[in-house]
Amino acid sequence: MINYEKFFSLNAKGMKKSEIRELLKLTNKPGIISFAGGLPAPDLFPVEEIKELTQYVLEKEGRKALQYGETEGVYSLREQLVKLLKEDGIDIPIEQLIVTTSSQQGLDLIGKIFVDHGDIIMTGNPTYLGAIQAFNAYGAKMKGVELDNNGMNTELLDREIKKSIDIGKKPKFIYVIPDFQNPSGITMNLERRKKIIEIAEKYDLIILEDSPYRQLRFEGEAEPPLISLNSERVISIYTFSKILLPGFRLGWMAGPDELIQKVIIAKQATDLCSPPFNQYILAEFIKRGLLKKQISKIISAYREKKDFMLDKLQKYMPKLESLTWTTPEGGLFLWVTLPKYMDITEMFEQAVKRNVAYVVGTAFYPNEGGNNSCRLNFSYASIEQIDEGIKRFGELVREWNK
Amino acid sequence: MINYEKFFSLNAKGMKKSEIRELLKLTNKPGIISFAGGLPAPDLFPVEEIKELTQYVLEKEGRKALQYGETEGVYSLREQLVKLLKEDGIDIPIEQLIVTTSSQQGLDLIGKIFVDHGDIIMTGNPTYLGAIQAFNAYGAKMKGVELDNNGMNTELLDREIKKSIDIGKKPKFIYVIPDFQNPSGITMNLERRKKIIEIAEKYDLIILEDSPYRQLRFEGEAEPPLISLNSERVISIYTFSKILLPGFRLGWMAGPDELIQKVIIAKQATDLCSPPFNQYILAEFIKRGLLKKQISKIISAYREKKDFMLDKLQKYMPKLESLTWTTPEGGLFLWVTLPKYMDITEMFEQAVKRNVAYVVGTAFYPNEGGNNSCRLNFSYASIEQIDEGIKRFGELVREWNK
Repeated sequence: MINYEKFFSLNAKGMKKSEIRELLKLTNKPGIISFAGGLPAPDLFPVEEIKELTQYVLEKEGRKALQYGETEGVYSLREQLVKLLKEDGIDIPIEQLIVTTSSQQGLDLIGKIFVDHGDIIMTGNPTYLGAIQAFNAYGAKMKGVELDNNGMNTELLDREIKKSIDIGKKPKFIYVIPDFQNPSGITMNLERRKKIIEIAEKYDLIILEDSPYRQLRFEGEAEPPLISLNSERVISIYTFSKILLPGFRLGWMAGPDELIQKVIIAKQATDLCSPPFNQYILAEFIKRGLLKKQISKIISAYREKKDFMLDKLQKYMPKLESLTWTTPEGGLFLWVTLPKYMDITEMFEQAVKRNVAYVVGTAFYPNEGGNNSCRLNFSYASIEQIDEGIKRFGELVREWNK
Repeated sequence: MINYEKFFSLNAKGMKKSEIRELLKLTNKPGIISFAGGLPAPDLFPVEEIKELTQYVLEKEGRKALQYGETEGVYSLREQLVKLLKEDGIDIPIEQLIVTTSSQQGLDLIGKIFVDHGDIIMTGNPTYLGAIQAFNAYGAKMKGVELDNNGMNTELLDREIKKSIDIGKKPKFIYVIPDFQNPSGITMNLERRKKIIEIAEKYDLIILEDSPYRQLRFEGEAEPPLISLNSERVISIYTFSKILLPGFRLGWMAGPDELIQKVIIAKQATDLCSPPFNQYILAEFIKRGLLKKQISKIISAYREKKDFMLDKLQKYMPKLESLTWTTPEGGLFLWVTLPKYMDITEMFEQAVKRNVAYVVGTAFYPNEGGNNSCRLNFSYASIEQIDEGIKRFGELVREWNK
């Protein structure tokens, strides 16, 4: 028997099987109602349009679409994405936009170009699990900053950064999901956005703005993206996974020229280029105005599901002062906080027995916390499943409260 | 102006714009005959079959194909790949096979799980440029070992490994491309294959076997893949890019269970999964026996081009004892060695002026060397272009020889 452990890099030794992944496997059992994954609703996928466009692309430029492409991405797709950003108040030249193999690759590349083993990154507490994994793979130490209903607590952020600097460990960057944050569903208000920029300027830091759900706003007014407030310090990453479909594995990234150039070099070493075939299809999809139609379809479907889930939580959950949930204005998730004496991980086993699943809050805390909270996804389950699933969850919480 | 340099990780500081990439840009000028890239011939792409299969997959399982997939890869594709390997004498369970976003991602993930900054990797001298970039991104120091017509010089390999161990820097792994090596076109004979395994056992090392062209054998008998000689120490990576098409960005990797499990965890942090849409299409493509048909089509086309290029080299190159080239039995490349007094990089500018391009030998030397050699690709250019291109190259060499 060979001992393989000794071959691994320092960072690889720290890569553990995701606890969540193991938990999520339990939620694959037949008959379960899952609020666990971050899956978009498959019945909304524009299968017919994609069918037509694959034919069109293969006919029109098949030999180009099936060949290697440029590391930066297919030009016609990047053109469309520059336009898309412009409509959101983000004015950047095409050289500052790169197509990535999903936004997860965006996170990975950011880890790759910035993080040395032991470097500190400021994140939300809670924050996106996939970002924790991506940065962890480069040996980052994440420092979570609490959120309230207006987003990351910027006073705390300032204080924590100062503390780190004082001990000679200046953070590498601040990672935020300003709109409908994963997992909390919380949107950062304008004041906080400005404050975070101020903090980045004060301490000379980069901000990584992760915007997978930004276009999925159900109600209320959008606040400006951070990159539109400071184009020198903010890198923004996006994905098609939530606003269209995940199966193409495409996303994009925009930021300061010098940083994007470094990302391109890093990406070349990582996968040479993202699938040109998929890129040509999406370029045409956007060009024909189909993305906008798709987004409004998704928005109205998810809004209905979100409202319905909030309704059912109201109906089925016991009335307790210490039992609360967020009311997101968009995105895919809401966040439930239970009384402190309830342990969401212990409850999980019971939940699965009752054929309902969620993600335990602890998964989203880079250090510790989240024991009495959980994330509920409202995009994937059907209306009927949401009714039944929240009912079961409510019963479980009632029993646990006895 | 912000100084971005200071934000970069140690490894990112070492990532430079690829010189080659800049040179290759020159070869995009209209009218140029390029033997530079490693591009497959686009006129062989099975566009019609892919058209039909996209329709089939979208109709039959569109909602699954457009959704997220498992990190390991789509099960039906992995099943097909296990069968494919079995036909080549490689007997592994499906758990030990993972789909990657191209073999370049395979190289990246290997770097990620094994390499700490400053670690030594044994490679060929010359070796694949993309591997140099992938490992360099993790701060690896590559030690190149000379090749002869039977592959890597194993005596030298043994000696160099011993030297490294003696100074307390045991190499992390041995990277080889046994079949039709990139860039040299050389195939490792059986004796060397066995010897490399012996060396790995003697020093307790892992071997990374890169097999992008293995299936593209034009003549002669195939030697067994290294992984079939020792399944405990060898990881093998493959790609669809050369045997089918690069535009889907799909490859795969097989190896010892514990290593593949670590690769899966690393991949999850990198891009969650490779595009399920593309995977479903290729699973069906292989299932229908189309891959085999495609490979034999490619083999006969490339064999003709290779023979033709060898012929034209014979015809147009000056007769000099110190001017030689390899005669590959498969793959995409051959390797030209010029007299030592000729500088291939200096000649490159002249070559481009004459509208012919190649990759300078230096690109493939992780440390130094290759000044008087170059790689010629014979898969991409047409027969007419090969005739004219080699003629121009021959004229250039003649003039340089004066």
